[in-house]
Amino acid sequence: MSIPEDSVGIVTPQRTRFDDPLVLQCGAVLPSHELVYETYGELNEARTNAVLICHALSGHHHAAGYHSVEDRKPGWWETCIGPGKPIDTNRFYVVSLNNLGGCHGSTGPRSIDPNTGRPFGPTFPRVTVTDWVASQARFSDQLGIEVWAAIIGGSLGGMQALQWAIDFPDRLRHAVLIACAPKLSAQNIAFNEIARQAIVSDREFHDGNYLDEGVNPDRGLMLARMVGHVTYQSDDGMRDKFGRELKSGDIALGRDVEFQVESYLHHQGRSFSQSFDANTYLLMTRALDYFDPARKFGDDLVAALSETRCNFLVTSFTSDWRFPPARSQEIVNALVAARRNVISTIIDCPHGHDAFLLPVQRYFDVLTTYLQRVASEVDAPR
Amino acid sequence: MSIPEDSVGIVTPQRTRFDDPLVLQCGAVLPSHELVYETYGELNEARTNAVLICHALSGHHHAAGYHSVEDRKPGWWETCIGPGKPIDTNRFYVVSLNNLGGCHGSTGPRSIDPNTGRPFGPTFPRVTVTDWVASQARFSDQLGIEVWAAIIGGSLGGMQALQWAIDFPDRLRHAVLIACAPKLSAQNIAFNEIARQAIVSDREFHDGNYLDEGVNPDRGLMLARMVGHVTYQSDDGMRDKFGRELKSGDIALGRDVEFQVESYLHHQGRSFSQSFDANTYLLMTRALDYFDPARKFGDDLVAALSETRCNFLVTSFTSDWRFPPARSQEIVNALVAARRNVISTIIDCPHGHDAFLLPVQRYFDVLTTYLQRVASEVDAPR
Repeated sequence: MSIPEDSVGIVTPQRTRFDDPLVLQCGAVLPSHELVYETYGELNEARTNAVLICHALSGHHHAAGYHSVEDRKPGWWETCIGPGKPIDTNRFYVVSLNNLGGCHGSTGPRSIDPNTGRPFGPTFPRVTVTDWVASQARFSDQLGIEVWAAIIGGSLGGMQALQWAIDFPDRLRHAVLIACAPKLSAQNIAFNEIARQAIVSDREFHDGNYLDEGVNPDRGLMLARMVGHVTYQSDDGMRDKFGRELKSGDIALGRDVEFQVESYLHHQGRSFSQSFDANTYLLMTRALDYFDPARKFGDDLVAALSETRCNFLVTSFTSDWRFPPARSQEIVNALVAARRNVISTIIDCPHGHDAFLLPVQRYFDVLTTYLQRVASEVDAPR
Repeated sequence: MSIPEDSVGIVTPQRTRFDDPLVLQCGAVLPSHELVYETYGELNEARTNAVLICHALSGHHHAAGYHSVEDRKPGWWETCIGPGKPIDTNRFYVVSLNNLGGCHGSTGPRSIDPNTGRPFGPTFPRVTVTDWVASQARFSDQLGIEVWAAIIGGSLGGMQALQWAIDFPDRLRHAVLIACAPKLSAQNIAFNEIARQAIVSDREFHDGNYLDEGVNPDRGLMLARMVGHVTYQSDDGMRDKFGRELKSGDIALGRDVEFQVESYLHHQGRSFSQSFDANTYLLMTRALDYFDPARKFGDDLVAALSETRCNFLVTSFTSDWRFPPARSQEIVNALVAARRNVISTIIDCPHGHDAFLLPVQRYFDVLTTYLQRVASEVDAPR
């Protein structure tokens, strides 16, 4: 195939190593760790045009471009990152990493524990959004980026951008929070717990030691992904996509029908189970559940956000019922109360939570407009 | 304990046998079958005051009263059925049965297949809402009830009441449809499929032959129930009930937290897994998926409902996102288009789909008022 002209093209993941011990929130210490990342565009001389992309639950560092000319699928945010796209690589130096604890190359449960010579597996320490942000800050030091022009993320990625704004207020000029929430609701936690139970109930999970056993909890991961898929879409969106179309069988005879939506979920679930690590899934959903930046400010979100110095774009989607506009509005209201600079938009579309990954026209218009302003600040003499 | 005065008191389940072959929609034939049921109140001389209760996914025949003075829990609709209650046993003769394919006494997957001398298990034939209604009609004949004063059900129970109105238009005077829909959405089917996958993925499921193996797919049933529990409640309702309260652990230290909502779901799931049959759960969710009375009328719900002769009460709940008011409204609109008598109410409450089982004041006021009218018709000379 030929690479489209508006793509960043062929990209090569890079790997970086940190040999200083990292103390995590849970008290565990990682003596050293590695992060894998990609960059798109050029860092300007003043080092002021860098944009950090934070990934969501099942994301990774490969956000844009292709790994080879044979590559069939580009990065997960190819529609949004590239020359002339909303996150414009003609103007920004875009950095995208795989988080600590991930399963796409950064140190995580599949990595070898230097203390044992075997994979960490279930002994990989619990990692929180705060830990991720701390490790990303250290990564920024290594890249020589003092201040990010913007830190951008959807869902769990948006939570990282929010935590950045609180923990390192002087190290970012803009935070772009898409389809996120200041903390999970009981319903959100419940769905995560169902996914976790599906994984740990799988006979091939072996208390997390499936690598040692040479097996994989495929069915549990498949179920977990099915829960994700259904809840990240809207009822209307699924109706438009699948309706009650039959894949096989005859409903009039009341026997052995498979609906299209079932076959789709099976396919998505199976494919996910072959590419994602179960211990990482547990770890990432726990990071989601624990995220609650207001907690150490006496549950006062306004107090937490009073720490911030950057400008904010907060965007949500009408049909997103996992992280609905009302949850984004909690952030916006607290930012307003804290007298921070915030622009808030609610995008009307039927794609549910997954909309944050899709090239929805109005959403991309908002991102483009906002990021053009960010770029013009970078270009202007400071 | 002492039985409350407004209870129907001690009730004894009854069992009835049908020795005529029952041909099911899937083509399978049950040479004979049994149904277990309870009755509350007295049948009047004219046999015109009988009310049929149709149960939902995890329901059964024990809808009201106690099985003994030691019984800690009354029937599942104790708040609604009894002397002076919305379904007033001083005026109505109330009949509640366990559906064919159930696991509480009626012939189902746990029953012995006369052809093999072993439990049916996974070979129990597929049963549809149409089949249930046909078997209930035969049951009505046996009881000597030509016309039901009302047939009442919530969720899957409401779908049976709707199918009754279409298939046996002259055998009921009123249909009360609570929190139901004319057919499932893709999202509904998807949630059912997740529950089914959880069950069939359990190592103890053994392709449905768990009884032969002397085991039970507890974890799968637990997961299935957890999916049900979360989706039958609303986000707001769960927030009010659980918030982000911790059961154990310390979130500030980022380790080993269990939230209250998780512990609640585990408990509910475990208790369900010990009382419900996995093959019945698969069968009942399939009956839900397949329900689509408009299908044999060229997908024209108005045409389907033009078959009906009874009056309708259609009730839904604002926070019910599995069967939201808009789905009930589809039924109401089609009934209006078919020039049928219908009263429609939408109850504002935060309890989600589960509201149909709860004594919500306004909901019970509506039921009481409607059923008093039904009773007065019965009492009046015809």
